[in-house]
Amino acid sequence: MSSVEISRVYLDYNATAPLRPEARAATLAALDVLGNPSSIHAEGRRARAIVEEARRAVAALAGVAPRAVVFVSSGTEAANLALTPAIQASGRKTSLTRLIMSAGEHPCVLRGHRFAPEATALAPLKPDGRLDLDALAERIARDGGAPMLALQGANNETGVLQPLAEAAALVHAADGIVVCDGVQLPGRIDLAAATAGADLVFISAHKFGGPKGAAALIVTRPDLTIEAPLLRGGGQERGQRAGTENVAAIAGFGVAAQLAAAETEREAIRLAALRDRLERSLREAAPEAVVFGAAAPRLPNTLAFAAPGAAASTLLIALDLAGVAVSSGSACSSGKVTPSHVLAAMGVEPALAGGAIRVSLGWASREGDVDRFAAVLAEALAGLRRRRSVA
Amino acid sequence: MSSVEISRVYLDYNATAPLRPEARAATLAALDVLGNPSSIHAEGRRARAIVEEARRAVAALAGVAPRAVVFVSSGTEAANLALTPAIQASGRKTSLTRLIMSAGEHPCVLRGHRFAPEATALAPLKPDGRLDLDALAERIARDGGAPMLALQGANNETGVLQPLAEAAALVHAADGIVVCDGVQLPGRIDLAAATAGADLVFISAHKFGGPKGAAALIVTRPDLTIEAPLLRGGGQERGQRAGTENVAAIAGFGVAAQLAAAETEREAIRLAALRDRLERSLREAAPEAVVFGAAAPRLPNTLAFAAPGAAASTLLIALDLAGVAVSSGSACSSGKVTPSHVLAAMGVEPALAGGAIRVSLGWASREGDVDRFAAVLAEALAGLRRRRSVA
Repeated sequence: MSSVEISRVYLDYNATAPLRPEARAATLAALDVLGNPSSIHAEGRRARAIVEEARRAVAALAGVAPRAVVFVSSGTEAANLALTPAIQASGRKTSLTRLIMSAGEHPCVLRGHRFAPEATALAPLKPDGRLDLDALAERIARDGGAPMLALQGANNETGVLQPLAEAAALVHAADGIVVCDGVQLPGRIDLAAATAGADLVFISAHKFGGPKGAAALIVTRPDLTIEAPLLRGGGQERGQRAGTENVAAIAGFGVAAQLAAAETEREAIRLAALRDRLERSLREAAPEAVVFGAAAPRLPNTLAFAAPGAAASTLLIALDLAGVAVSSGSACSSGKVTPSHVLAAMGVEPALAGGAIRVSLGWASREGDVDRFAAVLAEALAGLRRRRSVA
Repeated sequence: MSSVEISRVYLDYNATAPLRPEARAATLAALDVLGNPSSIHAEGRRARAIVEEARRAVAALAGVAPRAVVFVSSGTEAANLALTPAIQASGRKTSLTRLIMSAGEHPCVLRGHRFAPEATALAPLKPDGRLDLDALAERIARDGGAPMLALQGANNETGVLQPLAEAAALVHAADGIVVCDGVQLPGRIDLAAATAGADLVFISAHKFGGPKGAAALIVTRPDLTIEAPLLRGGGQERGQRAGTENVAAIAGFGVAAQLAAAETEREAIRLAALRDRLERSLREAAPEAVVFGAAAPRLPNTLAFAAPGAAASTLLIALDLAGVAVSSGSACSSGKVTPSHVLAAMGVEPALAGGAIRVSLGWASREGDVDRFAAVLAEALAGLRRRRSVA
């Protein structure tokens, strides 16, 4: 990397994390293995072995058997695959009739996918960012039938952790199924514990130090079958996802999963300390700043805030020019800065939400990064104040 | 690579090609760029630039504008995306009513995808492996309505080139649309020339020296819109394919496309000479061998044959043990050796088809590889004959 880059501070891990050196090495080694995993000759078997080793690592991270892991190309693909009424539990009489999504779900979930639009509904958030469990219970009772609930483990914009086990109990009592967007969990908190209760969980390698291009849908219950795969036309992934496997990205995914499994317990503590340092600096630089989701349990790596009167786009540009990369919200779409549906669902006033900045930390974040961000932010806010007082 | 590997001969390019060093370098460099292409900070913009540079290279290979290229994760995903009645031409009154597929299409196409099974039909092949154009014309007239035709540029098992322009003329006269599986074309023949007439074309990086995990659906007609994307929930790829882009694989794809565009004219000649050398050796070792598709124009890199009485599985294992990797047919599925639907569609007797071996060459293939294959094959066939005469 050039010296220009080394001098930059990257605090946008919820958009994508830098590739971990160990995952990079595994990806590189796998790029040099030339077989197609479906080929039966030695080259093919070697490629197959790489995929299966990674499957074991991802399964271990999620606390499931390897056969529960379906490799896909992205979290978005996993959401498109999972959100279908055509998921059947062996022995269950009823079929899924409706999809309920928390109002704070990621855009890759909110489309509802293979549910008809009229069969989907939103479940509201409380002002602290957590799902309103009473409203969920009412909706399940009112709608009748077996629902699918889409509930993320942690929100990508605020880091707020959702009451997954409690929600799952409500859904399971109605013979329903819970799909958990777990994309923001690995490397930050214990994946298996945080997704307890979910029947399907999806994660994406590039959010925690693996390469882009590999993700997994994890079917935690062995009695569940996805009867309508999304990509068809080949027997790969036990018929659940056709197409030649991205062996190199999957290899890096496996190593990132191994590292996350080994390190998350202490990494969660380290990240929380960095985040708290960040929050203290923020309150010094902008005592009037509002931290979103502060009243709820949150991921240790995410801090979302707004300083009243400071537009997010203005701050983002100032921070970027000063060498600091953060986000104004979900970065998974078209590059546009749009109002946050998550903050709206929490009842945040549009004027305040328009100033929302997301800082997200990860494996390579250090105190120096946090301090640099705080200094640059203080400078940018002071500049805004000066311009306001002149105007 | 270890010395064991250097001593092996890989002749299974139609399953997957070794990564070209230049594509490997581009992939590696892109792995070290940490932004999400949807992020608006400097890191994100740099990742975006890599994707767009690759898009220009793939577009140039296909002879289209960059905006015609939709990046996806595999040829199979491209087929699942393209085979839908929800493709609309601006100004066209009628909608697609049926899908016609050549009987020799790849399994990733033959599922018909988003067409209802009762709205799909197979168009027969002639004994030489080419689509029967008279039968196609009859079917279009009999069915009425606007058809989608799925017709590959070249067959993955036999290398037979399909009469795409002639078939497209029939389909377009009925206001229909042609989807071409062009996966086996790049690096072997001129992609734009070979797919002339097709409205949508898909190719996959790993078949011609790019990495696994990147492919493209190329919409050659600017008036066409895919109204029902397959992966939704994000604005990437101009709304045609949601999900964080696999930047590293796409970077390698772009470089492989550049190389293919620059080299294919002379590479086609080189590969044809190697293939002819192979065919001569085969006829010396097994004068009774049948070459499939020999009466049709074929890719320069593919030789499919059977020696009567020699089972493909036996030969494959013998060749693999002797250090030579070839295939018995499509390697894109579950690793099973199954009877070839392509040869069946050509009217090949099952007993002969059961001996079908596919040898496919590519950018790193040299005369020594071909000669080693020929020697090992001759030895394996002689061994089979000895055992038969003893028995």
